[in-house]
Amino acid sequence: MDITRTLAKFVVDHQPAGISQTVCHEAARSFLNWVGCAVGASRHETVENALAALSPFSGPPQATVLGRADRLDVMHAALMNGITSHTFDFDDTHLRTVIHPSGPVASAILALAEREPVSGEAFLHAFILGVEVECRIGNSVYPEHYDVGWHITGTAGVFGAAAAAGKLLGLDEQQMTWALGIAATQASGLREMFGTMCKPFHPGNAARNGVLAALLAQRNFTSSNHGIEAKRGFAHVLSTRFDPAEITTRLGQTWEIAANTYKPFACGIVIHPIIDACIQLRNDHGLLPADVVSIEARVHPLVLELTGKKTPQVGLEGKFSVYHSAAVALIHGAAGEAEYSDDAVRDAQVIAIRDRVTATLDPAMHEDQTRVTVRLKDGRVLEKFVEHAIGSLDRPMSDAALEAKFRGLVEGILSTHEADRLIGLCWDIGTLTDAGEVARASVPR
Amino acid sequence: MDITRTLAKFVVDHQPAGISQTVCHEAARSFLNWVGCAVGASRHETVENALAALSPFSGPPQATVLGRADRLDVMHAALMNGITSHTFDFDDTHLRTVIHPSGPVASAILALAEREPVSGEAFLHAFILGVEVECRIGNSVYPEHYDVGWHITGTAGVFGAAAAAGKLLGLDEQQMTWALGIAATQASGLREMFGTMCKPFHPGNAARNGVLAALLAQRNFTSSNHGIEAKRGFAHVLSTRFDPAEITTRLGQTWEIAANTYKPFACGIVIHPIIDACIQLRNDHGLLPADVVSIEARVHPLVLELTGKKTPQVGLEGKFSVYHSAAVALIHGAAGEAEYSDDAVRDAQVIAIRDRVTATLDPAMHEDQTRVTVRLKDGRVLEKFVEHAIGSLDRPMSDAALEAKFRGLVEGILSTHEADRLIGLCWDIGTLTDAGEVARASVPR
Repeated sequence: MDITRTLAKFVVDHQPAGISQTVCHEAARSFLNWVGCAVGASRHETVENALAALSPFSGPPQATVLGRADRLDVMHAALMNGITSHTFDFDDTHLRTVIHPSGPVASAILALAEREPVSGEAFLHAFILGVEVECRIGNSVYPEHYDVGWHITGTAGVFGAAAAAGKLLGLDEQQMTWALGIAATQASGLREMFGTMCKPFHPGNAARNGVLAALLAQRNFTSSNHGIEAKRGFAHVLSTRFDPAEITTRLGQTWEIAANTYKPFACGIVIHPIIDACIQLRNDHGLLPADVVSIEARVHPLVLELTGKKTPQVGLEGKFSVYHSAAVALIHGAAGEAEYSDDAVRDAQVIAIRDRVTATLDPAMHEDQTRVTVRLKDGRVLEKFVEHAIGSLDRPMSDAALEAKFRGLVEGILSTHEADRLIGLCWDIGTLTDAGEVARASVPR
Repeated sequence: MDITRTLAKFVVDHQPAGISQTVCHEAARSFLNWVGCAVGASRHETVENALAALSPFSGPPQATVLGRADRLDVMHAALMNGITSHTFDFDDTHLRTVIHPSGPVASAILALAEREPVSGEAFLHAFILGVEVECRIGNSVYPEHYDVGWHITGTAGVFGAAAAAGKLLGLDEQQMTWALGIAATQASGLREMFGTMCKPFHPGNAARNGVLAALLAQRNFTSSNHGIEAKRGFAHVLSTRFDPAEITTRLGQTWEIAANTYKPFACGIVIHPIIDACIQLRNDHGLLPADVVSIEARVHPLVLELTGKKTPQVGLEGKFSVYHSAAVALIHGAAGEAEYSDDAVRDAQVIAIRDRVTATLDPAMHEDQTRVTVRLKDGRVLEKFVEHAIGSLDRPMSDAALEAKFRGLVEGILSTHEADRLIGLCWDIGTLTDAGEVARASVPR
């Protein structure tokens, strides 16, 4: 079984014409969302610490750290952008594998595209192919691979980054096979790191090491030809399940990026139906916080297991509190980074509403469902049932909602004009003369 | 169980005075052997390809690629020296875990020591501590971890590199705990890569990523405090066996580097007893190739399983041929890199003797034993039984033999005078004012 070589050959041979406009548009949506997340977190302590540590070792200023004046060599820029784009945990999700696909791939190739200009068409094509490689490899080993403790965005991401970077570098079939092998032997990232700065480090590291793999392979640095499927290769060493058909079946006929999703809310996906319900109730009925007596949500058991924090003290804890989340949704009609700041969780009005929220397990609810009941001082009882939360595959965010999310993320970093221009470039990514323009346009004056 | 923190605290608190002269001398032997291997392979295609690929991305010329004029940033230099030192597979071996301990650790800290000068005492101390961390972590998961397919020199090596680099950087206990966590989440390297350039890439990558871990931790880039022992940490995700006592018991009272070994011959360890026997027969009896009718070796079953190649065509295949190995040992009294060149395996005299070698399985032989019988034209029958091959823990190479090996490795790269000076600096490493002097002295004029 030549799984690695089959995948390599597919990436090398594939032409942009083989991808529909619909798929290209979904890729542009993924890219826009990724840029917004990266710029939005570009002042976060996580990337400040990483820059302080590593800038003295950077090579030539080849590529932009999105949203910042810093320019680093390609691999360091890829690392930093992978870190920032996942810092808020607000980037895209391939729901079947819980891979966050854009981080490793886009970080790798946007940095590379600033070294030697690349057309937007070639860039978007490489991006789609990289996500395809990453998610198919993920599909072949999920969920056992994830369950044992691997952060799949890191382990599968390095393959996607290598494939996409290798495509831009014009690797031949043998070199691409080696690149995937060099990626395989760097696959890493442990779920134990969740909750620390190492979580966003994983997609950054995957991007950095994927570029490294492609660069080495381009110079005929050899690896195994069976890095994925061999007995002592990636799949068997890092997973108890391996279904190679997930990698090779209908290659080029289906596209994993078409199944990509975007979070409307800056917290774990299990709370999204409740937030969605609260926002709808607020907007449909013009609710004011002062009117509310109680908010009762019937929820899937995972909600309380993962987000049962009653009295969060800092912003990050707020993300693990269904109570805080329902409160900000009802008060502000939003649950972005601003609603999960330290100030937000300490706000007296938020605390007052939060303490009126109850969440009750209901085994009849599936993960994407909830039923929220709000009782008002005037005696009215309002109810909202959510079948699929906004942002799910069944109720995707609209382009306008993605733009609004982007604006919320970059507020305070880019001017309105700069944000408008950057949004435009992201939508147009597939037709730009020079894809690197996006990176440079992300830097505020 | 605070395994990671216990180890971190040990490394942070330990003082050089706690290490005996004997242990320091073994560390100097390891270091000398490592420098020789790195300089010896400094012109190899593997590192030439890596340099061609990565030099354009290097940061400031902070550190030396041993044996070369190239100077790269610390992390790239660490990568390259880790690669060269393992390219010939001639570096040191911690037999209990088959870790090659020096590569990841020495590559990391010698590069770091060129950025900001470090005393030889501090350098040797960090080296010993790094090897201790690496080998104890290896002990805690071996052999299951290796058996499933991990190249333990890569996976355990990154911890050793991080610990040693962190010691030189003066990390505090919390930072060292994070550094080990950042190392844990980068642990990688697959045995599937054996026989390709990715095998020596593994210790290089471990060195590079270990330095990265220490640098990030120094700037308070956080990771888990339980990177090694947590349910979804290194040991449980990458191994089915984990014995934490191997990490914490008698810390500072025993030293793994004292159990380090060095290969006298540039091939897999299973052939070493046969080569040893042939060289002894040759030297004891003044044998000439023309006198020899046949060479018969009684060997452990693994010898034929791993090295049964009868007619090697290129140098690398010669390393997997007990026949070729016995022939060069008998003809040249040596089995270094020169005896495994392409020319050597095609030499008519070598082929003539090689074809007179037979190897017979003998279940009574343990892995370190052999009985070799040579029949001569004058009718004499000579026999040599080897109980433990030279280079084993029971019959270690002498300091003089290590020096001779070093000279053989650097021949054609360094002048005799340059080699003499470099050997002297390696022996004196523990008392140098500036450990980086060794790196600079490895560069030929």
